[in-house]
Amino acid sequence: MEHCTALMQALPEGIDAGLVLSEHNRRYLTGFAATDGILLVGRARAVLLADSRYIEAAREGAKGCEVELLKDAAMQMGAFFKAEGVRTAGIEAKELPVADLNRFRKLFPDITFDEGNAFNDAILRLRMIKSPEELDVIRRAQQITDDAYKHILPFLKPGAAEHDIALEIEYFMRQNGASGPSFGLIVVSGENSSRPHGVPGARRLQPGDFITMDTGAIVDGYCSDMTRTVALGFVTDEMRKVYETVLAAQLAAEQELAPGKTGSEVDQIARGIIYGAGYEGCFGHGLGHSVGLQIHEEPRLSPACHETLQAGMMMTIEPGIYLEGRFGVRIEDLAVLTDGGCEILTQSPKELLVL
Amino acid sequence: MEHCTALMQALPEGIDAGLVLSEHNRRYLTGFAATDGILLVGRARAVLLADSRYIEAAREGAKGCEVELLKDAAMQMGAFFKAEGVRTAGIEAKELPVADLNRFRKLFPDITFDEGNAFNDAILRLRMIKSPEELDVIRRAQQITDDAYKHILPFLKPGAAEHDIALEIEYFMRQNGASGPSFGLIVVSGENSSRPHGVPGARRLQPGDFITMDTGAIVDGYCSDMTRTVALGFVTDEMRKVYETVLAAQLAAEQELAPGKTGSEVDQIARGIIYGAGYEGCFGHGLGHSVGLQIHEEPRLSPACHETLQAGMMMTIEPGIYLEGRFGVRIEDLAVLTDGGCEILTQSPKELLVL
Repeated sequence: MEHCTALMQALPEGIDAGLVLSEHNRRYLTGFAATDGILLVGRARAVLLADSRYIEAAREGAKGCEVELLKDAAMQMGAFFKAEGVRTAGIEAKELPVADLNRFRKLFPDITFDEGNAFNDAILRLRMIKSPEELDVIRRAQQITDDAYKHILPFLKPGAAEHDIALEIEYFMRQNGASGPSFGLIVVSGENSSRPHGVPGARRLQPGDFITMDTGAIVDGYCSDMTRTVALGFVTDEMRKVYETVLAAQLAAEQELAPGKTGSEVDQIARGIIYGAGYEGCFGHGLGHSVGLQIHEEPRLSPACHETLQAGMMMTIEPGIYLEGRFGVRIEDLAVLTDGGCEILTQSPKELLVL
Repeated sequence: MEHCTALMQALPEGIDAGLVLSEHNRRYLTGFAATDGILLVGRARAVLLADSRYIEAAREGAKGCEVELLKDAAMQMGAFFKAEGVRTAGIEAKELPVADLNRFRKLFPDITFDEGNAFNDAILRLRMIKSPEELDVIRRAQQITDDAYKHILPFLKPGAAEHDIALEIEYFMRQNGASGPSFGLIVVSGENSSRPHGVPGARRLQPGDFITMDTGAIVDGYCSDMTRTVALGFVTDEMRKVYETVLAAQLAAEQELAPGKTGSEVDQIARGIIYGAGYEGCFGHGLGHSVGLQIHEEPRLSPACHETLQAGMMMTIEPGIYLEGRFGVRIEDLAVLTDGGCEILTQSPKELLVL
């Protein structure tokens, strides 16, 4: 079913129509990508207002909704509310800035805007479960990411700079069908690898470094996500212990990942192994997150996530250990939950690789 | 003066402290880039709460504020409010999602959150006027953009695909000091050039095409922005007329751009020339926008912008004519307003180029 139609049928009780302004939700619902636009979703029909920059493409590409040229947003929204008999309108409470809601309330004094999360969550619930078509696209994105990892290994030599490695990965992805990286790619080495979200810099690789590469590609708007950590030249016993601990945590969590469990249960498997090995306080982020049109989607694998996992959800599994100012290791796969457990989309090997 | 200090002194009346959560405003105020974090700005002190991924880098890089490890956001925010005697807190009303404000109101029932725009606008007013340091960085970003234009011209040959051209521009920018493109670069050709915000696709250039390239680079977080339209092989009389009309409008608007005028006055200069030449309805977007840490900043050059322009503001000047399904032309420079008028940062020639 077209996503816009699915939302029309899933409008929460008491909400006659909803406003969709965020880029990702609009894209998800209409299948049409544009930085701006207003999507109005009622019970009987949905209308996308696209401005002059996008109108031509929107008329060709948008699905499950009518398309109108955006001329006067207030007038056109008012006309829609009137035609559809809308009294209560839902908003994307998790996206819509406060100032925009205030503006709508002034423009449409007869409409009650529900500032709760019901309408927003109805969209997110649809987005959580990937269709076979969405899964295919994410598979392609992950395949490009695996190919890029294979491509980059020969570049990992003493003297190579982090930012040049990141650029080479991105260039390869783009040449091989990605529209771009799914986030600012992370390539951190040596003491920089203790920063889970470090920015690739001018530091040059040297023997004894861990190099953590957190990468992903976008295909047709959908993201992939993968991290591998490799060593250059040699590893100390401590580096090996940290690596093997992270890998054991990663593999155990993948074993555990299945519908019916909660995000916190799966997080706890990995966290228990890492803390049990003496690295409490060295794994400050959650174990994973869902992925789709955005690189970080709900639900999460984290101590705070009590959402029950379902088949069709995408999940990253990415434990790490970070020793401040010294080194860090993170290993991350991308998986889709299946009826009995999960299928790992990531193909790249995970055994400790010393180049 | 450090930006955070400037905001402490510019806190609107009746607001004891403000919450800054958006990536761009946090970066502007602290000089430190991170996808997440909470900046609390009071009258006497400012505190950045950075999570474990960023804490090490934040302690080195953040300016004008204290840095604390984010452990329990609610507890730490509450402690700040108490220590600083905060009763009314400002928010980024133009950025903060409704759901986040609702959450803060529940967490801190004793604090009044001002949902107006005063605190947000205080930040934006600071951001509008670029310091000499910011201007230097934007100059570097624009220099890379000009260099990339020169670099790409020999690639514009029959058979070259739009997306390959876009990738080559981006790769050149990255190799020459940009951290990335300042938006999804636009390379559209032939009938695609009638789409002002088209996405580069598989279409291959052919003789008789206009090729519109809207490009920009990021350096140290700051954006540049430039558009050039060139022709391949030959142009018809109509194509030449459209090009010369856009160029005349562009040059006239640059002549007019100066402090003391409003955005709509400058827009009207270009719009009058385009409409007067018979192209009313073919220039559906505004004449320009400000640029900084974000590619689109306030104020705008548009019929709806009555803001008075000031020295130190950055502005794009980018009129266009789009003939649906046939072709389009846009020409865009980046300028900074000076005491008497403006200085054009863009160096690339604008005369009609037929390759």
